[in-house]
Amino acid sequence: MLINELPRYEILSDDAMATLDRGWRRIVSELGIEFLHDEAIDAFRAAGQQIDGQVVKLDPEFVLEQVAKAPGEFDLQARNPERSVHIGGNHMVFAAVYGCPFVREGLERRDATMRDFENLVRLSHSFPQLDSPGGTICEPNDRPLDSRHLDMVYALMTLTDKPFMGSVTSGPNAADTIAMAELVFGRESLEQTPATISLINVNSPLRYDDRMLSALLEYAKANQALVITPFLLMGAMSPVSVAATLAQQMAEALAGIALTQLIRPGCPVVFGSFLSNTDMQSGSPSFGTPESATGLLCTGQIARSFGLPWRSGGGLTASQTVDAQAAYEAMMTMVPTMLAGANFVMHAAGWLESGLVSCYEKFVVDIEILRMLHDQFTPLEVTDETLAFSAHEEVGHGGHFLGAVHTLERFRECFYRPLLSSTKNYERWKRDGGEDAATRASDIWRKTLEEYEQPPLDEGVREQLAEYVTRRRAELGD
Amino acid sequence: MLINELPRYEILSDDAMATLDRGWRRIVSELGIEFLHDEAIDAFRAAGQQIDGQVVKLDPEFVLEQVAKAPGEFDLQARNPERSVHIGGNHMVFAAVYGCPFVREGLERRDATMRDFENLVRLSHSFPQLDSPGGTICEPNDRPLDSRHLDMVYALMTLTDKPFMGSVTSGPNAADTIAMAELVFGRESLEQTPATISLINVNSPLRYDDRMLSALLEYAKANQALVITPFLLMGAMSPVSVAATLAQQMAEALAGIALTQLIRPGCPVVFGSFLSNTDMQSGSPSFGTPESATGLLCTGQIARSFGLPWRSGGGLTASQTVDAQAAYEAMMTMVPTMLAGANFVMHAAGWLESGLVSCYEKFVVDIEILRMLHDQFTPLEVTDETLAFSAHEEVGHGGHFLGAVHTLERFRECFYRPLLSSTKNYERWKRDGGEDAATRASDIWRKTLEEYEQPPLDEGVREQLAEYVTRRRAELGD
Repeated sequence: MLINELPRYEILSDDAMATLDRGWRRIVSELGIEFLHDEAIDAFRAAGQQIDGQVVKLDPEFVLEQVAKAPGEFDLQARNPERSVHIGGNHMVFAAVYGCPFVREGLERRDATMRDFENLVRLSHSFPQLDSPGGTICEPNDRPLDSRHLDMVYALMTLTDKPFMGSVTSGPNAADTIAMAELVFGRESLEQTPATISLINVNSPLRYDDRMLSALLEYAKANQALVITPFLLMGAMSPVSVAATLAQQMAEALAGIALTQLIRPGCPVVFGSFLSNTDMQSGSPSFGTPESATGLLCTGQIARSFGLPWRSGGGLTASQTVDAQAAYEAMMTMVPTMLAGANFVMHAAGWLESGLVSCYEKFVVDIEILRMLHDQFTPLEVTDETLAFSAHEEVGHGGHFLGAVHTLERFRECFYRPLLSSTKNYERWKRDGGEDAATRASDIWRKTLEEYEQPPLDEGVREQLAEYVTRRRAELGD
Repeated sequence: MLINELPRYEILSDDAMATLDRGWRRIVSELGIEFLHDEAIDAFRAAGQQIDGQVVKLDPEFVLEQVAKAPGEFDLQARNPERSVHIGGNHMVFAAVYGCPFVREGLERRDATMRDFENLVRLSHSFPQLDSPGGTICEPNDRPLDSRHLDMVYALMTLTDKPFMGSVTSGPNAADTIAMAELVFGRESLEQTPATISLINVNSPLRYDDRMLSALLEYAKANQALVITPFLLMGAMSPVSVAATLAQQMAEALAGIALTQLIRPGCPVVFGSFLSNTDMQSGSPSFGTPESATGLLCTGQIARSFGLPWRSGGGLTASQTVDAQAAYEAMMTMVPTMLAGANFVMHAAGWLESGLVSCYEKFVVDIEILRMLHDQFTPLEVTDETLAFSAHEEVGHGGHFLGAVHTLERFRECFYRPLLSSTKNYERWKRDGGEDAATRASDIWRKTLEEYEQPPLDEGVREQLAEYVTRRRAELGD
């Protein structure tokens, strides 16, 4: 977990903020938000909001009253207390890629399997730059659809001791996640401090669907953390305007957050953002675009204005392979993520091909990017001691510092040490095989998996988890 | 030329600035700066500074008095007035890579030739994101060493009408550059508004060498713009401390700038920075490191505190090939370059392999990065109109915006349109050859060269330039 003490980079003027404020208020009050779940509608009706079929027309002041009940920061516990994280403030929590049906391993692209899921969770456990494996790190397509959430949660609870994200594919699947978490954390501890954080996507524009709402309701009732995320590819799910999309994002996120607080006041919740644009030439989604970077910077400023922790960012790219495009697009989202100080960063490692692919080599590229940025966003120490005047006295005019006492005392720790990047001279690099970064990344993840050690878990607890999975799988008919 | 109206990202506290201020003052006054040129020594002596052999011990207040004579902003004229640029303030001027002995074209790495020089100047002319080809865009190794500066200046003056950088390999070579510029601009116009900008590297630590000083003196006397750049790879030319290196950079740059103002008060000059670190494992230079990014952000803040325009940045990388590393390292310097608002950005396109290689494909990757960042660093328009409420009214809940009137009216211009990046779906991409970004970049630069049109130049002037080159080449014995 990085504590980012560098300044936030904010680009919206007070005027712009006031305009956006008018924007979301008009959307929630005049157009309203559609909630395709009766319990949600009932909750809003009971709170005096205007209901029109499944559409709730919200009083903006009411929305803000609810939002104010959400905590500004909260802890998320891991089964290893040393890996528990804090969400909000200057804290930045990084989780791996989420939701990909395919994997890429070297030049092979194929359906993701449970073996891939386990491998990617192990990699997430191994790299300290990741605070969480996330949740659906890839889709285990070789497991039955109805019960694979059990396999995933079991793997997330046993192969790593970092905090993880719960299943959101339905209310019952969310209930399974909570039941399994209870076996590890105990009901009371779980209720006091969330041990799961789960992603609720809005079916944008202006609609929450039945499955996501069912999951939201389960988690909120259990006081588990939620990330309420408008899913906005401008041109498809929102207007072709960053300003309009930001207003829509506020309307959608705040409405969902208000619902969580109606269900369970004080439930920990994160203002989510997933905002990019359609490539209007190909009709496909684009990632790492200037518009997405701008949206990211603005979202941080907006979420802070509501006193909410927020989620965005990641190493996003539309590239099909681990090439220069994959890297510069990943940087186009990861650098603004750091500048804006996102509190919860999904897709921080492994994302490829617009999120369709979890890629082993991209995972390592993203880890290198995180390592560099974690260093860059650490305050520089400027003191009389770090001015190192004695080194200048020693070396003088036109000399060199390689052999200076000041250097020899510090050379191991003084600079960033790369994991993946090569500084070899050309002849040496060529002699060593002339491998590009993607090829070297392949060696790194394989070696990391070989060296992986499973974190300990009480055998009794593990058996209870396994029994739960077996029993529920049978109930689900798989 | 980008006018960057977004905020500057500054990370140094007032305390840190005060500490750095003490740092450079102590270096110039106690250790002094070595100037290996009698005319420079004489100028400092005449101004009352303490001379010890070739070392000048400078009074910091005297240095600041000289620095205050330099203009805070200035114009740099191009032979096509539409391509003249302004250096300073919010203006950012981008120039191509500089000084590489080798080129890389696809998988081939070889000695650079005059043909490469000309091709790279043509590419610089073709892409509007570059305001200047720079100067030594690669070393034309197939031309005689003594006279190749004539070939380079001739190419820079005839193949593009953008402003360019002069030869600094010696005083006479600088004089040749000025003489040729006089043929195009006329002496009076040249003296009034500089038409060349030239790079004076410090032979760090704390030394200016004879050749660079000879060039500095020629250009300053002719009122031509200079970029005074400490050349700092931490661990080799400066201590293994960013703070110490920043203080050294201030000492070296300010001393050189003071010299320019002694020679010609008001001469346009740029506070230069070339600051990265040695990889202490390989002993090789590293680029795109966290330390270099931090140094870049600090340098902007420091240069502004002296009221000087400043130079830094570029698409720097140590990578040997156009891979993910080349791209993420380039972004690690180009994004801070934008955040810090560098006024003159060298190496903005084509840099590979720690600056040993001018690479055609990397050139295109860097152009794509510049295109994206130029868009990102353009203020977002947040108005009631851009909130596009009517689009929401039209689309409603759960619909999509692709066919909305608001979208159809704007789809051509609403978002960034990539030059190089691909958003094709996997099947289409695979069917089209499965080319990575480097391979696609190869097609782009070839097509750009095919479509290149040489800008017009008065035939009489061109002949005078050619005659000058022929005459001087003969005088130099080549």
